[in-house]
Amino acid sequence: MKLSRFLPVLAWLPQYDRSTLSRDLLAAVIVTVMLIPQSLAYAMLAGLPPQVGLYASMLPLVLYAVFGSSRTLSVGPVAVSSLMTAAALGKLFEPGSGEYIAGAVLLAVMSGLMLVLMGVFRLGFLANFLSHPVISGFITASGLVIAASQLKHLLGVSNGGHNLLALVGGLYEQLGDVHGPTLAIGAGALVFLLAARRYLQPLLVRLGLAPSTAGMLSKTAPILAVVVTTLVTWGLRLDQAGVAVVGDIPGGLPALVMPSLEMSLWQQLAMSALLISIVGFVESVSVGQTLAAKRRQRIDPDQELVGLGAANLGAGFSGGMPVTGGFSRSVVNFDAGAETPAASAFTAVGIALATLLLTPAIAMLPVATLAATIIVAVISLIDLPALVRTWRYSRADFLAMLATILLTLSYSVEAGIMAGVGLSIGLFLYRTSRPHSAVVGRVPGTEHFRNVCRHEVETRPEMAMLRVDESLYFANARFLEDRVLELVSARPELSNVVLVCPAVNLIDASALESLEAINERLADSGVRLHLSEVKGPVMDRLQGTSFLERLTGQVYLTSFQAWQALSGSAAHPGGTPGSGVPAEQVLAGDVSKNP
Amino acid sequence: MKLSRFLPVLAWLPQYDRSTLSRDLLAAVIVTVMLIPQSLAYAMLAGLPPQVGLYASMLPLVLYAVFGSSRTLSVGPVAVSSLMTAAALGKLFEPGSGEYIAGAVLLAVMSGLMLVLMGVFRLGFLANFLSHPVISGFITASGLVIAASQLKHLLGVSNGGHNLLALVGGLYEQLGDVHGPTLAIGAGALVFLLAARRYLQPLLVRLGLAPSTAGMLSKTAPILAVVVTTLVTWGLRLDQAGVAVVGDIPGGLPALVMPSLEMSLWQQLAMSALLISIVGFVESVSVGQTLAAKRRQRIDPDQELVGLGAANLGAGFSGGMPVTGGFSRSVVNFDAGAETPAASAFTAVGIALATLLLTPAIAMLPVATLAATIIVAVISLIDLPALVRTWRYSRADFLAMLATILLTLSYSVEAGIMAGVGLSIGLFLYRTSRPHSAVVGRVPGTEHFRNVCRHEVETRPEMAMLRVDESLYFANARFLEDRVLELVSARPELSNVVLVCPAVNLIDASALESLEAINERLADSGVRLHLSEVKGPVMDRLQGTSFLERLTGQVYLTSFQAWQALSGSAAHPGGTPGSGVPAEQVLAGDVSKNP
Repeated sequence: MKLSRFLPVLAWLPQYDRSTLSRDLLAAVIVTVMLIPQSLAYAMLAGLPPQVGLYASMLPLVLYAVFGSSRTLSVGPVAVSSLMTAAALGKLFEPGSGEYIAGAVLLAVMSGLMLVLMGVFRLGFLANFLSHPVISGFITASGLVIAASQLKHLLGVSNGGHNLLALVGGLYEQLGDVHGPTLAIGAGALVFLLAARRYLQPLLVRLGLAPSTAGMLSKTAPILAVVVTTLVTWGLRLDQAGVAVVGDIPGGLPALVMPSLEMSLWQQLAMSALLISIVGFVESVSVGQTLAAKRRQRIDPDQELVGLGAANLGAGFSGGMPVTGGFSRSVVNFDAGAETPAASAFTAVGIALATLLLTPAIAMLPVATLAATIIVAVISLIDLPALVRTWRYSRADFLAMLATILLTLSYSVEAGIMAGVGLSIGLFLYRTSRPHSAVVGRVPGTEHFRNVCRHEVETRPEMAMLRVDESLYFANARFLEDRVLELVSARPELSNVVLVCPAVNLIDASALESLEAINERLADSGVRLHLSEVKGPVMDRLQGTSFLERLTGQVYLTSFQAWQALSGSAAHPGGTPGSGVPAEQVLAGDVSKNP
Repeated sequence: MKLSRFLPVLAWLPQYDRSTLSRDLLAAVIVTVMLIPQSLAYAMLAGLPPQVGLYASMLPLVLYAVFGSSRTLSVGPVAVSSLMTAAALGKLFEPGSGEYIAGAVLLAVMSGLMLVLMGVFRLGFLANFLSHPVISGFITASGLVIAASQLKHLLGVSNGGHNLLALVGGLYEQLGDVHGPTLAIGAGALVFLLAARRYLQPLLVRLGLAPSTAGMLSKTAPILAVVVTTLVTWGLRLDQAGVAVVGDIPGGLPALVMPSLEMSLWQQLAMSALLISIVGFVESVSVGQTLAAKRRQRIDPDQELVGLGAANLGAGFSGGMPVTGGFSRSVVNFDAGAETPAASAFTAVGIALATLLLTPAIAMLPVATLAATIIVAVISLIDLPALVRTWRYSRADFLAMLATILLTLSYSVEAGIMAGVGLSIGLFLYRTSRPHSAVVGRVPGTEHFRNVCRHEVETRPEMAMLRVDESLYFANARFLEDRVLELVSARPELSNVVLVCPAVNLIDASALESLEAINERLADSGVRLHLSEVKGPVMDRLQGTSFLERLTGQVYLTSFQAWQALSGSAAHPGGTPGSGVPAEQVLAGDVSKNP
């Protein structure tokens, strides 16, 4: 049982039976047909020879099947990782050169190592710092950049660049060089694929297929486009008319590749590898969780790191490129009925067969077809209305999203992510440094206390109950001092101040000093300071400090007890200042049994 | 009234009278006597000629008197800023060279500009990110580095370096070169100053002086050490025997100095100037607030930025060095009875007179005496037991403090501060990314709900009330999903889950998506999701979203209402799922009047 946690394959392989086999095999056939053009296309997007995409679709799938915790995730080359690979390597080497290919291998190996290490040290939570709006903005912007980068293949011109401005500017200059036959094939494939996406499923349903079968089959349209355009190119000898084709690629399975051990290259690629790892991990986990939830399964994020890490190490050592779990392929795999990761292993076999048998045919495949495949795949990722939805809900999230989009489009994918993460964290810290606080009063007839400005509540002139809506820590410690002293100076009749603490999840050393200062200054003005609704973990810490001894008032379990004890009497019922056991201790019962 | 906020001098100057004048004058005389040796010593500590310290003690004091909001802060050269100045310039130039002095001028001007800009844009809150433990650790480590850096002057050897390792290592190598007469003077001054600190006040009290007068007079011991050692050096011609003396310094008042406009130098010094500004600001504000509170006055942190900025601009343009409000001098100024910033202006006049009249005498002042002055001043800043206190209260704060101390000692003051701030923020984010949460139940006989593991509370098998002790934002959004689904899978009999939200101060876009996912997944399992105690500002945001429409349960104003409505009935009293106006709206009364 324990071992199967670290080697998820042990959880399903012993129960493997014939019916599972048949479902997994069917799913594998469909995913293989989908993966062949995708692996070629994403290798091209990454600036790599087409066989690299095929290599990255064999060993990684087998390794993920052994180590990964998702039953249905389809691992392999994906659009965003390919774009990030191109951006990382394009700065350093000539695309397609030997160094460039070695760089892709190293990126995969480094990503693999980083992911495995993050898994071993249970650092999966780091991915949480990529907020939804940042991811969404990044994917949208990446989709735009990827689509723009493929236009040159559709138009038959040469053009480079890793951001939208450079790409669009370059295209504009070369509009005169557009190659007619290439455009015809590319535009034809594009229109076919877009039409297939919208109309093929309904058409197949009308022809009598079950909707789910029709949906799956419609996802295999790219292979049809590949076959038809390859045949047309071959039949009309369009390659001799200047249509770019994939060309001869080495047949046979990949050999073992040793990654470069050059230290300076590792340093140059480290940040890129980290970002590729984290973005890939986030994409995989969100797909994996969505699919797992549909079948009431769970995935273990830390084990996912190990599984994806193993897959990337496999990709690197077999001459591939960085891989991760792709959204559309995983959904097809799931819908096609894959029950275990064996489906992925069978897919790997399918790709291996294709590599052995089909490479001669692939030579005549037009590059424009692959470009059309990529464009159609990424168009669905672009979600600009999300900007409007986010703006409506939260200005801070909108700013982070916008910064991510703008920097990804205008500068680079890495700058976009880092700006988004930095801004998200900065805005969160800014917000917590100026917390909301409210003077509260009793909701009549209840033991509940709410903001005096929002609700009709009872208050008493000689006591103020202040609820601070944030953990008390260094960034807002001084704010609390200001807020309390302001309150007391505005209401000279006050004799008791109660800090209502249900939202205080932490009091750090800086805030503790502020509380001590507040207690002393209030004491000088003849005002007693009390706390109420201090939560267990916070109280545990305060117990050991001198603050509780010096506190002029009491710690009440509930605000209502504070209200009753302090109501209207100047005689301080409930004990003299600083004396007696704090109420929390009296009422808490079995304190500290479980923090 | 409005203008006096931006020009605090207008608040006190119109009421200035003779009795205030006499008290301010007395304080000015005492502070001047204290400031003369300090300004010379801190200039030396900064690697600058002694007159630079005097220049920085004239115009800045007058400008702070006009623009600063503290009545009693004594601005001028201080130990930590001087050390930071030396660290910043020592990397670039030869100490004492023309470029080095121009660098100090530029640092003062840049700090001044930054402080004024921060004040104008009300960015004083940035200083809050320097937590108490980081400041305390930084001051302690700086004190150790400063003391070590002065040992060479006491021993009469040459030695450099900006961290403890380099300084101690350098000293060890040169122990054979110790200069006897220098050591005699230095050690004598050191012993005298240490003895004066401990015994002078009690002695003066026993001689019949009032304790406060005795306290102030004991603070002027350094001037006695200066006078005596200068006379001894002059009388015995010790300068010809190799005792280092201050030497001839230009008499007369400072001339207007134009700072360098070399862009590359501005860039090189920008980070140093920013850190000097922020550290100086934090030191000033904490001294200023402590003193102001004693007289029931307030200081305005944003106006303090302007005041300190003006002072630093004044320091730069009059050939000085970065200045800030010093702790010991400000306390002496306060205790001596200073009532208004006029005392500082009079101190400036005193320093100007000293500069005009005393420079010939200062020439024979031994450097060892100044070193002894500095060592005694910084020893009181070193607070190593704070490490133990912090360790006991909070491991996170301890780590930040330790990192600050170790990096300041072993590497540089700037690295120490940045590591401390970075680690504080990182640990805070880490903590909020894994929030505490508790299943709560009803404290019997009350409307209050507490952790079932800590308190004897009532619960019901078919409903779970989960209190999440943190704002819900991107870093913990996935955690919440895991926590709720884990709870539901562990208790199959559940039909209602209430998220108790008094500690939720923010729900950002990522967390909103998580809540939507939770709501859907619970609905699939036949469990309804409810919220209770959602605070006003959080509810305001949720109002506009589709989440509230899709929510299978209700939003209750109080947890007790949720408890009553959901208790034991499978018939869902209080409305069918998703229908009806959420309770919050019904009960809130005048919602949104005041967020």
